[in-house]
Amino acid sequence: MSRLVMKFGGTSVADLERIRRVARLVAAEVAAGHKVAVVVSAMSGKTNELVAWTDDAGPSAPGLPAHDDEYDVVVASGEQVTAGLLAIALRKIGVDARSWLGWQIPIISDHAHGRARIDDIPGEALAASVDGGQVAVIAGFQGVTPEGRITTLGRGGSDTSAVAVAAALKAIRCDIYTDVDGVYTTDPRIEDKARRIKKISYEEMLEMASLGAKVLQTRSVELAMAQRVPVRVLSSFVEPGEADPDTGTLVCDEEEIVEKRIVSGVAYSRDEAKITLLGLPDHPGVSSRIFSALADANVNVDMIVQSRSKDSSVANMDFTVGKRDAAKALEIMNAAKAEIGFEEAKVDEDVSKVSVIGVGMKSHVGVARTMFTALAGKGVNIQAISTSEIKISVLIPSAYTELAVRALHAAYGLDQ
Amino acid sequence: MSRLVMKFGGTSVADLERIRRVARLVAAEVAAGHKVAVVVSAMSGKTNELVAWTDDAGPSAPGLPAHDDEYDVVVASGEQVTAGLLAIALRKIGVDARSWLGWQIPIISDHAHGRARIDDIPGEALAASVDGGQVAVIAGFQGVTPEGRITTLGRGGSDTSAVAVAAALKAIRCDIYTDVDGVYTTDPRIEDKARRIKKISYEEMLEMASLGAKVLQTRSVELAMAQRVPVRVLSSFVEPGEADPDTGTLVCDEEEIVEKRIVSGVAYSRDEAKITLLGLPDHPGVSSRIFSALADANVNVDMIVQSRSKDSSVANMDFTVGKRDAAKALEIMNAAKAEIGFEEAKVDEDVSKVSVIGVGMKSHVGVARTMFTALAGKGVNIQAISTSEIKISVLIPSAYTELAVRALHAAYGLDQ
Repeated sequence: MSRLVMKFGGTSVADLERIRRVARLVAAEVAAGHKVAVVVSAMSGKTNELVAWTDDAGPSAPGLPAHDDEYDVVVASGEQVTAGLLAIALRKIGVDARSWLGWQIPIISDHAHGRARIDDIPGEALAASVDGGQVAVIAGFQGVTPEGRITTLGRGGSDTSAVAVAAALKAIRCDIYTDVDGVYTTDPRIEDKARRIKKISYEEMLEMASLGAKVLQTRSVELAMAQRVPVRVLSSFVEPGEADPDTGTLVCDEEEIVEKRIVSGVAYSRDEAKITLLGLPDHPGVSSRIFSALADANVNVDMIVQSRSKDSSVANMDFTVGKRDAAKALEIMNAAKAEIGFEEAKVDEDVSKVSVIGVGMKSHVGVARTMFTALAGKGVNIQAISTSEIKISVLIPSAYTELAVRALHAAYGLDQ
Repeated sequence: MSRLVMKFGGTSVADLERIRRVARLVAAEVAAGHKVAVVVSAMSGKTNELVAWTDDAGPSAPGLPAHDDEYDVVVASGEQVTAGLLAIALRKIGVDARSWLGWQIPIISDHAHGRARIDDIPGEALAASVDGGQVAVIAGFQGVTPEGRITTLGRGGSDTSAVAVAAALKAIRCDIYTDVDGVYTTDPRIEDKARRIKKISYEEMLEMASLGAKVLQTRSVELAMAQRVPVRVLSSFVEPGEADPDTGTLVCDEEEIVEKRIVSGVAYSRDEAKITLLGLPDHPGVSSRIFSALADANVNVDMIVQSRSKDSSVANMDFTVGKRDAAKALEIMNAAKAEIGFEEAKVDEDVSKVSVIGVGMKSHVGVARTMFTALAGKGVNIQAISTSEIKISVLIPSAYTELAVRALHAAYGLDQ
C-alpha cells in the first residue's frame, strides 16, 4: 500500500471544468492502486478578491488594532470552497472522497497569522481515512493554532501544506501539479534550448528556488529536504493515467541521482538593487554599523563587495538588496550618514543576479573559471560575486541578463 | 451587565460599505453598555453562487453518492467571509472583536447536512469572551457535528443561529436586523393602512410565519418560544444609536403584552393547491388510505373538507397541499385510484389561504362570525376552513386575495 500526495495550484482548479479534470487525474492514481491525499489551492483569482475585501473592510493604519487573524479567517475560505467542490466532483465519478480543513486534520501552526509555519500534523485520523480508501481532499495554505484560530501559511503556502502532509502520511511522493511540465535547466523563455531536468537534488532545487526559479516555493523545498519527501513537479495538463515515472521533475536525495552534472541549472533574478556607499572611513566597526542598521529595519542584504583605491584612506562598499527594499535601504543609510561617515550613497536598480547551481561543484574545480571566461567572452561586466558550496552568483548590468544566461547554459553543456 | 445578540441578514452585509455600516450599529450598542454577539449571514448572492458551484461540480443523480456534507463545506464559507470582514471593520473603528465559526463555539448540530438542527451550544468560552468586552462576530447558518464535520442549518438558518446563541448566552434580547422595519398587521404592499405591530406573542408570530408572513423563519420563532428569548425585528437602515425600545416589533411572551387585540394580523399565502376527489365510496378506511399514501410520499396536507350530496351514496373530498407538491399529490392519487375507489381527481392551483391570527381569540366569541360576514359582504366564496386556538384560515379563489385581506384588516379594526 503506497500513499501518494497530489497538489493542485490555483490555475489547475480555476473553474468547475478544471476541477472535474483534476478529479479524473486523482481517479487515475486511485485506479493505479495508490492511497491518495490531494492538497488544493483556492480557485485562481479568489485569494486576491478575498484579500481586497479585507483591505476594504479595514485598511491597516498606525494606531489601529491588528487584524491578521481575521484576514486569515476570510482568506482561508478560498481553499475550503475548492476542497468541498473537488470532493463532490470525485464522488460524482465514483471515487469516495471527503474534504479536510486545516483545523480538522489538524495542521497545527504557530501564531504568525498571514505567514504561519506548520509545527505539527498529528496525521493518524487522516492516515486511517486515506488507508480506508477514501481520498482526502485537503484545503492547502491553512493551519490552526493550538487555541483553534485559523491561520494561513502565506503566499505559495499550499506547496508547503502538500509537502508537510506527505511527510505526516509518510507518502512515497508528493506530486506538485502546476502550469509547467517540470524544472528546466534555465528559463525556456530566454533559452529555447533549455531542457527539462528529470531529477534534481533538494539542495540544488533550494538554490534554484531562492535564486529566482519560481516553480516551487522555497519553504516547501526546505521542508521536503528536512523530511526527505520526494517531490515531483509536473504539468496539470498531463492526461489522466499518463503521468509515468519519467514525467516532470523529481526533487530527491542527491544519492538517488545516478547521472550527476557539475552544473544542473542557470537561474536569474531581476529583483535586485545595488546600493553603493562612497568614501567610507577606514576604521573598525563601520561595516557593523551599516549592516546592523539594515538588519534592524528587516532589510535583507545579499551580496557585499568592499573595495579600496590604492593609496587612499577611504573605501567604497557595494551591497545588494531586493528591489522593493531599495528605497528603504537608501533612506536608512542617509539617516545614518553622520554616524557611519560615508560621503555619498547611490542606488542602481539596473542590475540582475545570474547564478549557476550544481551539487557537482563540490567535487570539481574550474567551475568558477568556466563561468568568468564565458561571461568575459561576451563582454559582460561582473559587479559582485557570491558563492556557496553548490552555486556561484554574479551581479551584472540587467541589460546583459539574457545574454549571460544563454552563454552560461552553453558553457556548461546544458544544451545537450 | 446585559448581553445582547444582533443578527444581520444577507442584504444588510451585501457589500463592504454595508458591512462598515453594520459595524457602526454594533459600536452604538457597545457604547450603550451592552456585551454584544453579532450573527451574520453570507453577503447577499454569495450563497446562491456557492450552491450553483456545488451543482456544477456534481449534480445529484440516482446511483451517485450523496454529497450533502461537502455541499455544507462549500456553502458555509460564505458566512465565514462575512464574519471575518465584520470583525476587521469593527476593529477599524476601535471596537474589539473577533470572529467565531460554528465549530469554534461550537454550535453542535445533528447530522442532517443542508438542513441540520442545533442540538447544543456549550457557550462558556463565547460568554467569557463577550463578557470580557470583545464583540463576538458569529458566522450564522452553520454548525458542526459531534465528529467535527461542518453542517448548515438550511435556508434562513441564520435567524435560528441568532436565537440559539441568544438562548445560550442568556441574552436580554435577540435583535434581528432586516430589510423591513418590523412585523405588520398585514402585507403593506396589499393594504397601505397596515400598521407596524409593536409587540406580538410568540404564538401569534409562529402562526404569522407559517401562514405566509416571511419576516422571520418559522424554526427560529419556535426556538425563541421554547427558550423564551425576546426577539426584536427591526430595520438595518435605522441610524446607529437610534434603535430605541419603540423601534421595530418585539416578539415576546403573551403576558408582557398589555394591550391585547382580539386579532393581531391578517396573513395570506398563494402557495396553495386544492386537490378534489370526486365520487368517493362511502365506507370506512377511505380517508385513511388517501392520507397514508400522501404521508408516505412526504406530502404535507393542510386543509381537508369532506362533502356529500343529499341522497347520494358517494362523497367528494377536497384537501390542500403546497403548490410544489400538487403534481406529485395528483400522481399519487391516480396511482391509488383503484385501491381508493374514487371516480375523478382534479387540481385547482388558483386558490389562496387567508388567515386571521390573534391570541385574543381564545377568550372571545364571534371572531369567526366577523370573518365570514366580512368575506360574504364582498362576495368571497369560502372553499375550506381550518382553525386553531389562535387563528382561522379560509381557502378562497386566489383572484380575491387582496380584496379579502383588505376586508378582514378593516373588519377587525386593524386600520386604527
